[in-house]
Amino acid sequence: MRSGGKVKVPHDLVSFLKTEDNFLIATHINPDGDAIGSALGLALALESAGKKVTVYDRDPVPEFYRFLPGQNKFIHSLQGLDTSSFKLILVDCNSPDRVGLEEMDFRHSCVIDHHETEKDFGRIKWVAPDAAATGLLIFYLLRESGFAVTRDIAVNLYTAIVIDTGAFRYANTTAEVLKVGAELIEAGANPALISNSLYEMWTDRRFALLVMVLNTLEIRDEVALTFVTRRMFNKTNTGPEDTENFANFPRMIRNVKISAFLRQMDRNHWKISLRSKGDVNVAGIASLFEGGGHKNAAGCKIKGNLKTSKETLLKAISQLHLS
Amino acid sequence: MRSGGKVKVPHDLVSFLKTEDNFLIATHINPDGDAIGSALGLALALESAGKKVTVYDRDPVPEFYRFLPGQNKFIHSLQGLDTSSFKLILVDCNSPDRVGLEEMDFRHSCVIDHHETEKDFGRIKWVAPDAAATGLLIFYLLRESGFAVTRDIAVNLYTAIVIDTGAFRYANTTAEVLKVGAELIEAGANPALISNSLYEMWTDRRFALLVMVLNTLEIRDEVALTFVTRRMFNKTNTGPEDTENFANFPRMIRNVKISAFLRQMDRNHWKISLRSKGDVNVAGIASLFEGGGHKNAAGCKIKGNLKTSKETLLKAISQLHLS
Repeated sequence: MRSGGKVKVPHDLVSFLKTEDNFLIATHINPDGDAIGSALGLALALESAGKKVTVYDRDPVPEFYRFLPGQNKFIHSLQGLDTSSFKLILVDCNSPDRVGLEEMDFRHSCVIDHHETEKDFGRIKWVAPDAAATGLLIFYLLRESGFAVTRDIAVNLYTAIVIDTGAFRYANTTAEVLKVGAELIEAGANPALISNSLYEMWTDRRFALLVMVLNTLEIRDEVALTFVTRRMFNKTNTGPEDTENFANFPRMIRNVKISAFLRQMDRNHWKISLRSKGDVNVAGIASLFEGGGHKNAAGCKIKGNLKTSKETLLKAISQLHLS
Repeated sequence: MRSGGKVKVPHDLVSFLKTEDNFLIATHINPDGDAIGSALGLALALESAGKKVTVYDRDPVPEFYRFLPGQNKFIHSLQGLDTSSFKLILVDCNSPDRVGLEEMDFRHSCVIDHHETEKDFGRIKWVAPDAAATGLLIFYLLRESGFAVTRDIAVNLYTAIVIDTGAFRYANTTAEVLKVGAELIEAGANPALISNSLYEMWTDRRFALLVMVLNTLEIRDEVALTFVTRRMFNKTNTGPEDTENFANFPRMIRNVKISAFLRQMDRNHWKISLRSKGDVNVAGIASLFEGGGHKNAAGCKIKGNLKTSKETLLKAISQLHLS
């Protein structure tokens, strides 16, 4: 996936898609643009090819992704469905527990993901950590399989790529990423409309929450700390899904190397979103707390009150940086 | 320059660059990234080809553009130079008054620009309003002329394109723009380093001022009002130059059509920065107060205290919108 590198789409994956039917495409809980765009891009292509497709996510599609063509295909419960006949395709994740489907049996299963693999799941696996976005993998897969990339598919895949490259700003933005972006524009994706939908359609409640969160900013040794409490959600009539991307804002500051955003889950648990610049690896920090992610974007959970959670995190960061 | 369109680089421009020597490359006052990147990209290429090049801008290179390779080539005065022997190349503008060089005589002159032409200047003109950035034109020109695009040139041209497309977000972001971006990455431009230099080098004081300003947000009939007082500057140890781009933030909100940012000049005078979305024209509003600008970005001054200035502005906006 690196610039100049040739992409190898697994043959068994291509023939799986072409010969099988009755797919269940599932993606991870708290889905982001890459998860949703990849799932829908693939679903629309398979449907165009006359296949039966069910698209599942445990959680709702966040409001600002509801411009994505086909987003109403998502179902959020599999109750009453004969899942044993489904051919499962996990996208943008690589194990059923990330999806919330642990206890199910499927006829067949495959994985299309760009996260580092941890779990041994899937009879067919395509996990390419070098790829900037799962949306890129779907693009290559459709091309290799001979499925047409329609305008609706292009919008989904372009959005997936925009989200996971920080709008072409992160270190994963290779020449190859821009070339695929160009092909998706030629297929009908409109960059200005997509950017407007993603970045200029905030509710005023969400913006009020952002300002409230930025007011909590504290900078300690090149680490920016911000947080949101349940009380702040209540006060602004917002929820966790409104905080997507909040962790990125303090990255604007020159002397910030890591931005940590703490979201209160319950009285004594915090979900931590970590973002870093350049060579600072936050996946390593997250893994200390049984979390995970990528070098520049990772997440984990910490138990404690706000003060102790901050201290626990800062201590882990300073130990990892010193070692 | 539109997607799919073929770019025609003027032959006389190519032969002008290849056969002539002793160039003066000049760009507009208050230079932005497209002006600076285009001027430097062209200058570095001509120098590599063994030509003598002088690069001029009346104003200094803003601090956040000082990472651009060759930026120290800029001179800000032509005093003592024999300008009559120069072959002038205006980039990212098309008349000497935009540069501050009205009274000079040059041996030869040419223009490379993507703004709408108003003035009749230049013996060789390449003005392509369809092009997203002058940096794109320089890229085509170098390729057509057989000049190598080195890493340093690529960094300058990539930055030019990023700035004038709002980091690939504006409506001028075509497939062609991304394809050229990909070629510049292959030539050595590093998207993450460039974005970091442009967008992630804020001082913490400036960020603190932004948060303070966002706390003043008030939304009235699709108009977002924010303000900064002299006291807020004092409190954060910042100045007016730190507020560049502040007016854009409330554009993130869905039901905001106009963002007005009021900056206190003295007790009773406010500088107003207006930003709008889509078809809303703020130049017309600014002109009511003897200001001006473009359709989506304009400015003016209003006399009064904060409260009356806001009311005066809102009244003007509602009258213009009602008419």
